[in-house]
Amino acid sequence: MRHIISFEDISPDEWARLYGLTLDIIARPGDYARSCAGRVMAALFYEPSTRTNFSFQAAMQRLGGGVIGFSDPSVTSASKGETMRDTMIMVSGYSDSIVMRHPCAGAAKAASLYSSCPVINAGDGGHFHPTQTLTDLAAITRLRGGLRGMSVGICGDLKYGRTVHSLITALARFEDVTLHLISPRQLACPKYLRVFMQQRKMRFYEVTNLEAALGSLDVLYMTRIQRERFDDPKEYDRLKGVYVLTARKLSLAKGDLLILHPLPRVDEINPDVDGDPRAKYFFQAETGMYARMALLLELTALPKLTPERDYTETGRLCRNPGCITFREDYLPFLEENGRCVYCDYSLKGD
Amino acid sequence: MRHIISFEDISPDEWARLYGLTLDIIARPGDYARSCAGRVMAALFYEPSTRTNFSFQAAMQRLGGGVIGFSDPSVTSASKGETMRDTMIMVSGYSDSIVMRHPCAGAAKAASLYSSCPVINAGDGGHFHPTQTLTDLAAITRLRGGLRGMSVGICGDLKYGRTVHSLITALARFEDVTLHLISPRQLACPKYLRVFMQQRKMRFYEVTNLEAALGSLDVLYMTRIQRERFDDPKEYDRLKGVYVLTARKLSLAKGDLLILHPLPRVDEINPDVDGDPRAKYFFQAETGMYARMALLLELTALPKLTPERDYTETGRLCRNPGCITFREDYLPFLEENGRCVYCDYSLKGD
Amino acid sequence: MRHIISFEDISPDEWARLYGLTLDIIARPGDYARSCAGRVMAALFYEPSTRTNFSFQAAMQRLGGGVIGFSDPSVTSASKGETMRDTMIMVSGYSDSIVMRHPCAGAAKAASLYSSCPVINAGDGGHFHPTQTLTDLAAITRLRGGLRGMSVGICGDLKYGRTVHSLITALARFEDVTLHLISPRQLACPKYLRVFMQQRKMRFYEVTNLEAALGSLDVLYMTRIQRERFDDPKEYDRLKGVYVLTARKLSLAKGDLLILHPLPRVDEINPDVDGDPRAKYFFQAETGMYARMALLLELTALPKLTPERDYTETGRLCRNPGCITFREDYLPFLEENGRCVYCDYSLKGD
Repeated sequence: MRHIISFEDISPDEWARLYGLTLDIIARPGDYARSCAGRVMAALFYEPSTRTNFSFQAAMQRLGGGVIGFSDPSVTSASKGETMRDTMIMVSGYSDSIVMRHPCAGAAKAASLYSSCPVINAGDGGHFHPTQTLTDLAAITRLRGGLRGMSVGICGDLKYGRTVHSLITALARFEDVTLHLISPRQLACPKYLRVFMQQRKMRFYEVTNLEAALGSLDVLYMTRIQRERFDDPKEYDRLKGVYVLTARKLSLAKGDLLILHPLPRVDEINPDVDGDPRAKYFFQAETGMYARMALLLELTALPKLTPERDYTETGRLCRNPGCITFREDYLPFLEENGRCVYCDYSLKGD
Repeated sequence: MRHIISFEDISPDEWARLYGLTLDIIARPGDYARSCAGRVMAALFYEPSTRTNFSFQAAMQRLGGGVIGFSDPSVTSASKGETMRDTMIMVSGYSDSIVMRHPCAGAAKAASLYSSCPVINAGDGGHFHPTQTLTDLAAITRLRGGLRGMSVGICGDLKYGRTVHSLITALARFEDVTLHLISPRQLACPKYLRVFMQQRKMRFYEVTNLEAALGSLDVLYMTRIQRERFDDPKEYDRLKGVYVLTARKLSLAKGDLLILHPLPRVDEINPDVDGDPRAKYFFQAETGMYARMALLLELTALPKLTPERDYTETGRLCRNPGCITFREDYLPFLEENGRCVYCDYSLKGD
Repeated sequence: MRHIISFEDISPDEWARLYGLTLDIIARPGDYARSCAGRVMAALFYEPSTRTNFSFQAAMQRLGGGVIGFSDPSVTSASKGETMRDTMIMVSGYSDSIVMRHPCAGAAKAASLYSSCPVINAGDGGHFHPTQTLTDLAAITRLRGGLRGMSVGICGDLKYGRTVHSLITALARFEDVTLHLISPRQLACPKYLRVFMQQRKMRFYEVTNLEAALGSLDVLYMTRIQRERFDDPKEYDRLKGVYVLTARKLSLAKGDLLILHPLPRVDEINPDVDGDPRAKYFFQAETGMYARMALLLELTALPKLTPERDYTETGRLCRNPGCITFREDYLPFLEENGRCVYCDYSLKGD
């Protein structure tokens, strides 16, 4: 465990260790109040994200560590003329861990090529956001003791939602999980994920109706549906009510259901749900802070390493216009299993 | 003592304890350098205020604690689509205290309905700013040993100045205080305060001339007069010199006068006063930081509580367009003694 | 050692002590992780500088101290109406050290007149940037054991480059240093520096060709040449390649050359140099953070002092339009050896 670009960078054993550490921090926070004294986390937010940024900053400071960074995209103009490579070499010289959010897919991977300290991906375009998945699993485990045997409903935009893809992939690690994928047809799970679930022999059902699925769920993971995803706005208006959770609909659910949401919610969970003891999305956010404390505690203690920077380029350019290789043009073109190493875009097809 | 919305939220006993703690922190700062280790203060400035923000941030860090937050109103757009309620539940999950400034009256009160940690009002529109009053009383007490028997002049805009209203109310707690309220007639003390002073049997004089009052004062509290407060700008130009303190005018004052100002001053105190040993406004600002340390030390140690959120609404809408209920429309309409619980606006008359 | 306005404010003995402390911090960082607990550094950046700001903030936090401040020039408008004098009195009341960058020459000197804690100049217009020189000397000493007997090439804009002027002045302190000043004729070293080097009997050569000088150097200090410095842009295009360091040119250099750069580099050092073991500019930046830790450790421990503010004005106005006295018009006009005390501009000539 060094750079955390996707949740896959945390092995099952490491996850178990992190989760154990998370529980211990929650139980005895005073014992950890100086654990990172003298260490520094850099929070480089090339795109604003108050929530994720606050969570990481609070986490590092609860460990007694310091924080440098920027939270405002306009700051990037301040480093005008400098490549992200130089920024990363410099900042990693000052820091023990870099938390990074960037609008381009693959940005955190690119940063990791040059950083002498661990890079944590806090969102790279619509690509990965591994500490959200860490948060999700930690919250469920904390509330239920584990994932095994759970019936998990995931509702909303399953086509574009990055937190959802990462969560589905992560759930493959646990035994006997049943997935209920609840979305409009236009926003159903992408094919590669369906293939993935079949290969892993995961039990999953794709449905279009939240109310129909609700009664059988142990966990309901709500996400937002954005109007922009629909070609026809009328279609959005017609459908959106179906995917809104209300106190009334909740009467159909189990008494010990867990309702989760990556937040911020807009109107997909009605405020009349907040008072229900099954509403756990704020508990989930708080758990995320403790899970990030565990992660930072482990990563900022790692020795600094100078990256090798000796890459064999493939010569195949990535064709994804949202890929970081389009913005930072000195990056080596790297490929693995026919996919761009940065953004995972397939390099095979045309 | 939990949420500090107005200075009234600090009882006389709590004030005495806070002041004692303030003195001890000043005397032995090293003993407190780790008192808040592992704790986090959120500084949510929906309206910029470098001075108050710096004072709180320095205070928390001198206690060894951490700070998250934003200081830039544009950041609020980053949380676009999210209600203040959700922001407060989330941020209070990450923090041990929330310091909040907002352009709307009642914003801190509204935040306190949803926060699981103490909320400190650092200014809500033209309404309350309790830690300024804390600062003022601490500075006078530090310099004079107490307020009892003091002759206190308050000069400037007594109609709109929020720090002034809070100070006058707080002075009612002390015995034998004489008030000299010095202002142009247009900016005299509002009626409700005059009624308050009469009910409390406070001795007060309303005058329009600073020089005439100066000789009898133990404390002179200067505030700014803003040109915008006058219907006729010429009236402003004619009057403003009367309410400017200069070294020349100071010759009329007692040798042990205390000159205070909430800062920033613009030109209501001439710089030629700065060198006078009676000028205590910078001492006052510094004292404010120590008083805030005492407050944070007490509040961040309180256990987290989930607010009840079970309110009986009155149905009566607040008619003050500057009230937070206009911006955050899910807020319950609450009333106490015929006044809006958020902004204190009278709900009786029309 | 109190205010650090120019590198001259650090005596040779103090430099030796700071460097020894720097080495100790690098060797045993854990021993210093709480050295500044309870202390606060203010970082007042009236002009953005991510790099310098990060370096100072990381330094203070690695010592367990806190940071307040702003990094965005727009924040200055927040303190609109307040003089820099009042800001400095207030902020120094909250802080144990003020780090300040400002677009006007002499701004840090002006701040030091009013600050009750040490002021560190982090760049005042094109004037001084003493901690860059501290960084440069610390990096060379760390890599070579000292400066004595070194052949130092300085390449680029020697006319306007502030880091270069400060470095040349500082090198006069060391015995047997040979300078190779490499620049286009238009951007040669200013006359006053040439006079300075002659008075100090420094050995120096002025040349226009990097390749010709490269073979004899122990240290090569690269700086950027800005297009705007040339009257004729074509002249810039014709010349710029001469002052770009590439892997090919490096083949002419000694095997143990040190390549330094104040960063950010734009294209004056080709990225193909980065992999060369002689490339030490990132090592230099990291060393700068440790040197700043040593400086902050010493300065934040000094007792607070109220400045005297009793100045005898000369009556001679500074005529440098970039001088801070133009922006902050209450500043006393002060002169030393016929030069403006703030910006060093000669007051003699006409």
